[in-house]
Amino acid sequence: MPRYRIDVEYDGGPYAGWQRQAGQHSVQEAIEKAIAAFSGEDVTLRGAGRTDAGVHALGQVAHLDLERDWKADTVRDAVNAHLAMAGETVSILSAAAVAEDFDARFSAKARHYLYRIFNRRAPPALERCRVWHVSRKLDAEAMHEAAQRLVGKHDFTTFRSIQCQSKSPVKTLDRLDVSRLGEEIEIRASARSFLHNQVRSLVGTLKKVGEGGWNADDVEKALKARDRAACGPVAPPEGLYLVRVDY
Amino acid sequence: MPRYRIDVEYDGGPYAGWQRQAGQHSVQEAIEKAIAAFSGEDVTLRGAGRTDAGVHALGQVAHLDLERDWKADTVRDAVNAHLAMAGETVSILSAAAVAEDFDARFSAKARHYLYRIFNRRAPPALERCRVWHVSRKLDAEAMHEAAQRLVGKHDFTTFRSIQCQSKSPVKTLDRLDVSRLGEEIEIRASARSFLHNQVRSLVGTLKKVGEGGWNADDVEKALKARDRAACGPVAPPEGLYLVRVDY
Repeated sequence: MPRYRIDVEYDGGPYAGWQRQAGQHSVQEAIEKAIAAFSGEDVTLRGAGRTDAGVHALGQVAHLDLERDWKADTVRDAVNAHLAMAGETVSILSAAAVAEDFDARFSAKARHYLYRIFNRRAPPALERCRVWHVSRKLDAEAMHEAAQRLVGKHDFTTFRSIQCQSKSPVKTLDRLDVSRLGEEIEIRASARSFLHNQVRSLVGTLKKVGEGGWNADDVEKALKARDRAACGPVAPPEGLYLVRVDY
Repeated sequence: MPRYRIDVEYDGGPYAGWQRQAGQHSVQEAIEKAIAAFSGEDVTLRGAGRTDAGVHALGQVAHLDLERDWKADTVRDAVNAHLAMAGETVSILSAAAVAEDFDARFSAKARHYLYRIFNRRAPPALERCRVWHVSRKLDAEAMHEAAQRLVGKHDFTTFRSIQCQSKSPVKTLDRLDVSRLGEEIEIRASARSFLHNQVRSLVGTLKKVGEGGWNADDVEKALKARDRAACGPVAPPEGLYLVRVDY
């Protein structure tokens, strides 16, 4: 039974998230339906990251098993054709045959996220639903400096959704870089794995630093409090992108 | 009666174009309605470029006269608030008081357009309706070389819509640059003014060069034919952006 890895791009706006949920429209379900439509097979996809409702992906990775030994490029093109027919905002970037023990979720060595803040007075017309619009000027350098206090192995209870199902709140954050590119602030976060809502919680807290209300010490204090109540307001989903997964 | 210049960004997807047209939803009408909603004044906007249905703008410019002497920033913020309430995909980037003889259309010295081709196998999920998706690999260098034959003062009848209302088909094209940025091909065109559908006609013809069907000589022959029938298929509107207008 051949196993395939697919790399997936999607606009998360129309979906209740990656994960299949009863009575909701998910990215996983959209792709599973497209696979069934072309192959006649009912498959269950496993994704590397369970992105939330409204979160986008430039490079989500998933795996699936098919009975028949299709050419990988045929899988990509046929699934894309059925996704387009169904009006889904999901695109299969590539499909490749992989070893039987490849697991999109458990074989992942690193996950890379990007968060985009649109930092100008006027609301975005073209990038709406693709960025978090913050009209007050943010200090990206102060945000970057504060972000460095969060890099490393920590108990991230403060930055974890109360719905998080992870066994431990201890994670190693390998990278949290903040940089300004004109009117946009990019926040890049990398780790082997993340807690539920972790990136958006970190971004919401760093925004408080960018506005001048908090400094790096306040961020460190919030981390050490290991208390969800110490977290800044969680940043909205539309600015978040799952960029890449390393294996 | 104070005159204002406004710089405007829009997603052209939901509109029948910039220009007000009876029974159709236009960008001009959307802004005029928002101005009326905040100021109580009925105004007529004049825009620098009459973008077609589906064409976007990063920096369209228009002017308007108001009875009352509003602060320019108030005009920007109030119009944006009313545009947002109406669900329009239009944003006023800036508003500025200008001299009475400023005319967004006739004072313009140069107009700059960008055309984006998304050149990869998989369809765009996030950039859909923002680019022209061409799955066959295009040769951007050959396109650039051929484009140089079109730069300068020429009779552009070949690259002009039959609906074009311009008195003369003779225009001076100052720039037509083609470059590849990863999976994207950017075409940048600059001129004092353009004929109707000129950029999209040029792009459609250059795509034939990128595919290898035409070469630079064929493009020059098409230009010299001064015959609309010699033009390649017109590129779709969703890849086109009015980037900037110089005064």
